[in-house]
Amino acid sequence: MRNHNDDSNFVDTAAEAAEGIDDDRRALMGLAAGSLACALFGLPPTAAQAAGGIGVVGAAQAQPAPSAAAIAPWWPSKWGKDDQIGATNLVTPAKILDALKLVKTGKVYEMSHLYESSMPVFGQRGFTLRIPGAPTGGPLGANNVIYHDEFVAGEIGQVGTQLDGLGHIGMAFKGEDKNEMRFYNGFTEAEMSDAYGLKKLGIEHVRPIITPGHLFDLVGVRGRDLNLGEEITIADLEAAMRRQNMAPDAVKPGDCVFLYTGWGSLWNKDNATFVKGEPGLGIPAAKWFIEKQVVLIGADTWGVEVVPNPDSSLAFPVHQELLAKNGIHIHENLDTAALAADSVWTFCYIMLPLLIKGATGSPGRPIALV
Amino acid sequence: MRNHNDDSNFVDTAAEAAEGIDDDRRALMGLAAGSLACALFGLPPTAAQAAGGIGVVGAAQAQPAPSAAAIAPWWPSKWGKDDQIGATNLVTPAKILDALKLVKTGKVYEMSHLYESSMPVFGQRGFTLRIPGAPTGGPLGANNVIYHDEFVAGEIGQVGTQLDGLGHIGMAFKGEDKNEMRFYNGFTEAEMSDAYGLKKLGIEHVRPIITPGHLFDLVGVRGRDLNLGEEITIADLEAAMRRQNMAPDAVKPGDCVFLYTGWGSLWNKDNATFVKGEPGLGIPAAKWFIEKQVVLIGADTWGVEVVPNPDSSLAFPVHQELLAKNGIHIHENLDTAALAADSVWTFCYIMLPLLIKGATGSPGRPIALV
Amino acid sequence: MRNHNDDSNFVDTAAEAAEGIDDDRRALMGLAAGSLACALFGLPPTAAQAAGGIGVVGAAQAQPAPSAAAIAPWWPSKWGKDDQIGATNLVTPAKILDALKLVKTGKVYEMSHLYESSMPVFGQRGFTLRIPGAPTGGPLGANNVIYHDEFVAGEIGQVGTQLDGLGHIGMAFKGEDKNEMRFYNGFTEAEMSDAYGLKKLGIEHVRPIITPGHLFDLVGVRGRDLNLGEEITIADLEAAMRRQNMAPDAVKPGDCVFLYTGWGSLWNKDNATFVKGEPGLGIPAAKWFIEKQVVLIGADTWGVEVVPNPDSSLAFPVHQELLAKNGIHIHENLDTAALAADSVWTFCYIMLPLLIKGATGSPGRPIALV
Amino acid sequence: MRNHNDDSNFVDTAAEAAEGIDDDRRALMGLAAGSLACALFGLPPTAAQAAGGIGVVGAAQAQPAPSAAAIAPWWPSKWGKDDQIGATNLVTPAKILDALKLVKTGKVYEMSHLYESSMPVFGQRGFTLRIPGAPTGGPLGANNVIYHDEFVAGEIGQVGTQLDGLGHIGMAFKGEDKNEMRFYNGFTEAEMSDAYGLKKLGIEHVRPIITPGHLFDLVGVRGRDLNLGEEITIADLEAAMRRQNMAPDAVKPGDCVFLYTGWGSLWNKDNATFVKGEPGLGIPAAKWFIEKQVVLIGADTWGVEVVPNPDSSLAFPVHQELLAKNGIHIHENLDTAALAADSVWTFCYIMLPLLIKGATGSPGRPIALV
Repeated sequence: MRNHNDDSNFVDTAAEAAEGIDDDRRALMGLAAGSLACALFGLPPTAAQAAGGIGVVGAAQAQPAPSAAAIAPWWPSKWGKDDQIGATNLVTPAKILDALKLVKTGKVYEMSHLYESSMPVFGQRGFTLRIPGAPTGGPLGANNVIYHDEFVAGEIGQVGTQLDGLGHIGMAFKGEDKNEMRFYNGFTEAEMSDAYGLKKLGIEHVRPIITPGHLFDLVGVRGRDLNLGEEITIADLEAAMRRQNMAPDAVKPGDCVFLYTGWGSLWNKDNATFVKGEPGLGIPAAKWFIEKQVVLIGADTWGVEVVPNPDSSLAFPVHQELLAKNGIHIHENLDTAALAADSVWTFCYIMLPLLIKGATGSPGRPIALV
Repeated sequence: MRNHNDDSNFVDTAAEAAEGIDDDRRALMGLAAGSLACALFGLPPTAAQAAGGIGVVGAAQAQPAPSAAAIAPWWPSKWGKDDQIGATNLVTPAKILDALKLVKTGKVYEMSHLYESSMPVFGQRGFTLRIPGAPTGGPLGANNVIYHDEFVAGEIGQVGTQLDGLGHIGMAFKGEDKNEMRFYNGFTEAEMSDAYGLKKLGIEHVRPIITPGHLFDLVGVRGRDLNLGEEITIADLEAAMRRQNMAPDAVKPGDCVFLYTGWGSLWNKDNATFVKGEPGLGIPAAKWFIEKQVVLIGADTWGVEVVPNPDSSLAFPVHQELLAKNGIHIHENLDTAALAADSVWTFCYIMLPLLIKGATGSPGRPIALV
Repeated sequence: MRNHNDDSNFVDTAAEAAEGIDDDRRALMGLAAGSLACALFGLPPTAAQAAGGIGVVGAAQAQPAPSAAAIAPWWPSKWGKDDQIGATNLVTPAKILDALKLVKTGKVYEMSHLYESSMPVFGQRGFTLRIPGAPTGGPLGANNVIYHDEFVAGEIGQVGTQLDGLGHIGMAFKGEDKNEMRFYNGFTEAEMSDAYGLKKLGIEHVRPIITPGHLFDLVGVRGRDLNLGEEITIADLEAAMRRQNMAPDAVKPGDCVFLYTGWGSLWNKDNATFVKGEPGLGIPAAKWFIEKQVVLIGADTWGVEVVPNPDSSLAFPVHQELLAKNGIHIHENLDTAALAADSVWTFCYIMLPLLIKGATGSPGRPIALV
Repeated sequence: MRNHNDDSNFVDTAAEAAEGIDDDRRALMGLAAGSLACALFGLPPTAAQAAGGIGVVGAAQAQPAPSAAAIAPWWPSKWGKDDQIGATNLVTPAKILDALKLVKTGKVYEMSHLYESSMPVFGQRGFTLRIPGAPTGGPLGANNVIYHDEFVAGEIGQVGTQLDGLGHIGMAFKGEDKNEMRFYNGFTEAEMSDAYGLKKLGIEHVRPIITPGHLFDLVGVRGRDLNLGEEITIADLEAAMRRQNMAPDAVKPGDCVFLYTGWGSLWNKDNATFVKGEPGLGIPAAKWFIEKQVVLIGADTWGVEVVPNPDSSLAFPVHQELLAKNGIHIHENLDTAALAADSVWTFCYIMLPLLIKGATGSPGRPIALV
């Protein structure tokens, strides 16, 4: 309670409020005080904590401008300076035909979780659904028709099984100047941002994705579920291919690739652990896929890449490599367990991102057809 | 302004508020006073107005219980008393293979409009999108990562290009008693309704829909765009098939059918007219499709069926025939113009409804593959 | 993951979904399986559990119609059959003048908590706030103006410090029949309910509440904070008055009364315990206040009444006594600690409910002026 | 419809989407193409259009950095470099007592409109309310309790009758650099902005406002309702005071002032005209009030200041003068008609902004007590 006593006693609530923000966020993620930067990012604590509170946190506070040598401009894209669709340029009709040729039985593997309020979400994102009325309307007419609607509020392109669009991730080259914040193909925050939807790189630009998909069974490689912070290396990927009898050149330009790490078994069962971090791709393995010109990388984790990164100064560097620098989509919170259980290593992958104008990502119901 | 003067002068705002509700709704749809019932249903005025304000309105006010003879119970379903997926039972792996065989070139026709706040919506439904922050988070880490999210609020399963789930439409048999409000397979409002998501018939039960689709080009039949309130008859459908050189048995059990009426040309161009009513299926034509055991009927209109219905006492009877009585989905606000322009009459239709637990419908990005 | 194998292998997700709902809700409140009914109510477990899972749960499942003898109709109200403002009829200009006479120093005690996403909420209610853009708009004009908005989604009349309106609570007399669900003054669910706002008893009918307020310091009476499930009795209230040197007739018709139980010290510190239950009024103490013709009862708890009720078959009976039967408002999640600390027993209470048409409650910033 | 034909036929939807954004916004406000900048600001067209599409639009496009001479820093504030409450520093207990002394009869004048989805809002702001379920929960317990909640989504601090907080308006000194965007007391966008609530100058810092209020009846001065774009001058304010027999020094430091322009008669009756522009304060009249050290300026318009400004190069300069430079609140969309009708020129004004952490403004139920 704030007492307003006399002039000198009017308590300014600023300090209280500011303190409350920190408390709130720490409480949210169960983070220690030192990891505020991680909490701001809406993400789990990284190796920074293990390293004694330096690393990401210190780096974030300092926000050092990367040197020009370190960060070369990644634009214009190989598809031209106006391109907004990135790697999905490779999803051509011919590619679609290649994918459909993989379907022999018509069996469907669902790769999406249910969207529900109990699912794990990161940071302060949310998902709520309400049914207005019961029923929403009616009875009306001699036929006494009644009907239901649903009202949803939340970060629908960034919760649950979701595809990251090319407008999701960028890099700040010069502090808080929006003209120096860059995304795919060099588009700047100043050009893109709008309170009512991104003006560039919105999810509505993404093509329907129907293309061959390949599963990399890391659980099979390791003989166990992967652990938090466990990096997937090029050697791991190569081992998976050998184990699965995949030809060295099995992954073609325009294909999609998926990881089975076992981390997804925590989904809606132990959400607290699930969001704390994850096993996933390190930068070298990501580059290995980039060289193969994949269109999309998905996993049974919330971020596809290893978190925390082995280099504790880095925050989600693989996201930048894939989305910002190479226009390659990331598909998160997939269910890849049944594919692995059935040894389905290659399939026709179908994901149809919603045409939500200006959105940063999309929910969807990705499937594998065999 | 409400003055609070002395005891007798305290103005109760009830009258004002009640009046305001009516004003609000009438204003919303540009409806005359007599069509309140239509506005309550969140839908355009029906023939009731043409009939002098009786019809739907009067019927709705009286809410006559249909006689037992008139409305025979439609349950249990042919797929058993517990079935929640209706006609999508017919979308089997074999059916999926049939559909894929129709793909020769890999060309994609998009059948979805963009989701945007300017799109026409019915009644008081809404769709809003905001980008929190600019960017939403960062810069963080030595790599200065930044990111965007989006926050969406609205009836996302019932606005824009959307699939009606089996929990969307029902019939009230006994006024306001929820135990006597019935949906597909006889599920009652009392069993189904929950403020946080339908407990039965939620959209998460719907299978991925990959099946042969057939377009009926009514614009071709008429030689012009169809008009508001213009009923599509069995004869029209047969004429379309002849004109398109479709075999009489072209539509097989498990297939989907689509209408091209030309009404969709008003989308986001003349929203006021678009939502006022529409051309569409009458009850006989709907039953003709039901006999063919289709899985889904779609159109370039907001309701697929003719509105107002020629029988002005009825409110959306075709919705009841399809969804409640036969478990057949309705796909609304589709874009079918380009298919018609290219004379694409049969194709592989793919629609992957989102697995939103307890939702009444789903957005999506339906496509036609040829 | 759901596999779609062959016809017989298409897994219907109904069972999974239904099970998921239960899991979700149990997880939400940390409730045992037996207390599903409590969870449905979005509220903490009651004595039902202690009593072996009967009580509320069993009662709710059976939904026995109260006998006519047990539940006499409470309508029409003493203010006439059309009245929608209940006890605030007593907040007359004369009453307002009485309240202002209590102000001697102009000191303000704030009785509201901050509204923030970290605050404890019940069941599946929520509160989210986003700032669209950064800034939301601009720079514009030669003066480079920029601006911020905020976007809020949630049950804003039923989270945080909030006033229950007369449309919030009722009683079902005959199962699921909306014509037999009654609220204040006998208004029925069928008359009131509308998906877009209550048609009767909306919060917009409530008068500004400026009236004498009295604090009952139960912590002072007990010599300690009250415990979960601890009932406040008439004897407790009388003891508080004696201890605070309040005259036996200190509480006049039209006044407000408030409880200090100490339970509020858990606010945003131990939310899990805070929402599990609470100390509060039993039915006899509530009736004692009703006889005094108070306008509003508030407390530093989320429900003002004792939860679980000593009679484990009852769910929130005091809410029904106050709101539905007597038109007396309930003000929840107040901060009454500083008033008690300063021994401020009587004050000018000001609460100005928002005129949100059709809302069930209101946020606000209640204050005590002395 | 977007056709995906062969590689060269894949239509990139970027151009379509970008064009769509413009169309959307123009449609929203009925604006001509030249006034995009106005539409982006979510506000009505200004004199820029009358001036041939230059003015605001051209200025906004050029975004010239104001010269140092023209725009002197307005910080630190007279209440110190850390102050976040601005002019409400003047609302002391003594001031509150002064205000209460004005109350003679206890009569309440309500100054708030109803919050409802039909009310006029600016740009793309919104307000929606849904009642989840019917009822939301229950029946539960032997007492068969039932209850209703409401779910609200929208810019609740910036729609309807609303108070602008000090975090609402600022000025960009150097294009898109957030370190050079300044608000009250010099706080920068970089310091303040957060996707989940302002970190500085949130509405939770504002004190309860109980202070003498003075109405300026411009309709009385003019003998008619004021017109769109009609500036209120110092001479007008002085004429109002003379006409109302107010002493020249009637407005004291810490008081609030209100305008009655007649524009509010359009509220919810002709929303399209209401939001197109408005009569209101010019810069000189605003400075006249600033010199008098008022705490808040309100009006029966959506922006208090004249729109468009007579200097067509300026966008909302009075907002900057009041909020950013002087920490004086603005109260918009008030109902001041009944006060004027009863010649109530001075009164006790009570406005209790909600303690929403990080919000930019607040709804409320302001009242005038006499």
